[in-house]
Amino acid sequence: MTFEEWMRAVLDRVETALDHYLPAQDIEPTQLHEAMRYAVMGGGKRVRPLLCHAAGELTGAQAASVEAASAALEMIHVYSLVHDDMPCMDDDALRRGKPTVHVKYDEATALLVGDALQSQAFVALTADVLTPAQQAALVRELALASGSVGMAGGQAIDLASVGHTLTRPQLETMHRKKTGALLRASVRMGALAGTAPDAATMSALDAYAAAVGLAFQVVDDILDVTTDSATLGKTAGKDAKDGKPTYVSIIGLDASRALAAQLRADAHAALAPFGARAQRLAELADLVVNRVS
Amino acid sequence: MTFEEWMRAVLDRVETALDHYLPAQDIEPTQLHEAMRYAVMGGGKRVRPLLCHAAGELTGAQAASVEAASAALEMIHVYSLVHDDMPCMDDDALRRGKPTVHVKYDEATALLVGDALQSQAFVALTADVLTPAQQAALVRELALASGSVGMAGGQAIDLASVGHTLTRPQLETMHRKKTGALLRASVRMGALAGTAPDAATMSALDAYAAAVGLAFQVVDDILDVTTDSATLGKTAGKDAKDGKPTYVSIIGLDASRALAAQLRADAHAALAPFGARAQRLAELADLVVNRVS
Repeated sequence: MTFEEWMRAVLDRVETALDHYLPAQDIEPTQLHEAMRYAVMGGGKRVRPLLCHAAGELTGAQAASVEAASAALEMIHVYSLVHDDMPCMDDDALRRGKPTVHVKYDEATALLVGDALQSQAFVALTADVLTPAQQAALVRELALASGSVGMAGGQAIDLASVGHTLTRPQLETMHRKKTGALLRASVRMGALAGTAPDAATMSALDAYAAAVGLAFQVVDDILDVTTDSATLGKTAGKDAKDGKPTYVSIIGLDASRALAAQLRADAHAALAPFGARAQRLAELADLVVNRVS
Repeated sequence: MTFEEWMRAVLDRVETALDHYLPAQDIEPTQLHEAMRYAVMGGGKRVRPLLCHAAGELTGAQAASVEAASAALEMIHVYSLVHDDMPCMDDDALRRGKPTVHVKYDEATALLVGDALQSQAFVALTADVLTPAQQAALVRELALASGSVGMAGGQAIDLASVGHTLTRPQLETMHRKKTGALLRASVRMGALAGTAPDAATMSALDAYAAAVGLAFQVVDDILDVTTDSATLGKTAGKDAKDGKPTYVSIIGLDASRALAAQLRADAHAALAPFGARAQRLAELADLVVNRVS
């Protein structure tokens, strides 16, 4: 199977899993459920589910187990986008090529959509396709990665940094929390959905995820200045306009590109112990660095 | 031990547990952690933790297990208050006798405080004082009670109902989700933190929780029109001003008082099979109906 075929198959399964783990649109309150589906379905690169599936292949995880974990990860990611786009945060009108939730509906609905998606992610992780021990382990991974020492904490640092000059280590700390923590959880949760991985496996996967997570952000910063809104599906040039520190603003475009290439090499190096079993993870590192949107 | 002594002892343990399960204030990002503690600590009636502890006594739950569950319940409750007070929702400036989080800090901080408290609740439920099977069961209870078919769904219905005339069944549906689901989860989670309860026990506890949950809301509606802001610790008379349907507006003050008394009797009746083991649950039903704030 080529990487493209694998990716298409996984993306199909992810859409089916999201549809399965979201409450049906005809369940009350129907408008909230419609808005949750508007935010989640049919859009996005599904990077976290792809990483989760690829890591699951490494530990022989059942398809159904990885699907539950992937759906939970994507719901957390989407909730963070919905809240992040609200007027009191980044105030953005376009996401994944569509009006953001607070524009399409209203602010109160956007708030509740995000809140309810976070809860629903934890509902998905208690699906009985996972053993109770796996459910408990995955919940802990996801909750820590989402909360104040992870993603939400990174957003707080991001907000506090607007208009300030960050050093490169400070910028890295912010991104390690804001996007890195959930990307790392994606890899770890995929592995934990299979046969209990040993400490050496988890440690190698952490090194891989750290490199991919940072690469993802560096490339995001590059694309923000080199690509148009239509291609990105979100407002381009926004970070610069908002006075947000980025890799491009701190080390420049060329050094950012070199850094992305180095991080890709680091990711590959971390996978060396796994050989061919880590093929999809290696290909995903390439995808993250080479993507154009 | 008198009920007052029992309650004081439980409330002390709940404060200690909340302090333990919230990230320390000196961990980065410190301002977010400070704001999370501002919202959670030293305030509130702690009704959900009290219900959780009382139900835990029925199934012989260990103190540490009930404390983890109680901390998680209170974090979810507080997150919902923080978001509910935001300008795009109820726009309230006073909560538990203090400025609301978005007034004390700002809207973005309030959004993130709520988001991070929800995550932190699920972190607390994966404490190793609970078995993996208990962790998984409690996460499922809490996630379903918080999400779109529970609390968040009830808030969506509440928002959609402003300025509309609700029938009494519609009002009851809203409250069963908005406040009832989490109160029910408080009772169920306390029971599940002990020796695995049988179906008859859970069913009797559900009947108790349904009565107490509805009584809680009826009394809230009564207090909103009969008590001043200083006593309530939140803005009195707000529901009427906002055109929100309440029990008082639909059936009147006298019928609301009679309903609260009936629901208290229903709660006591549901506890009959348990005898003296349910003493604290019975006393809590009285407290909910007789409270003055």
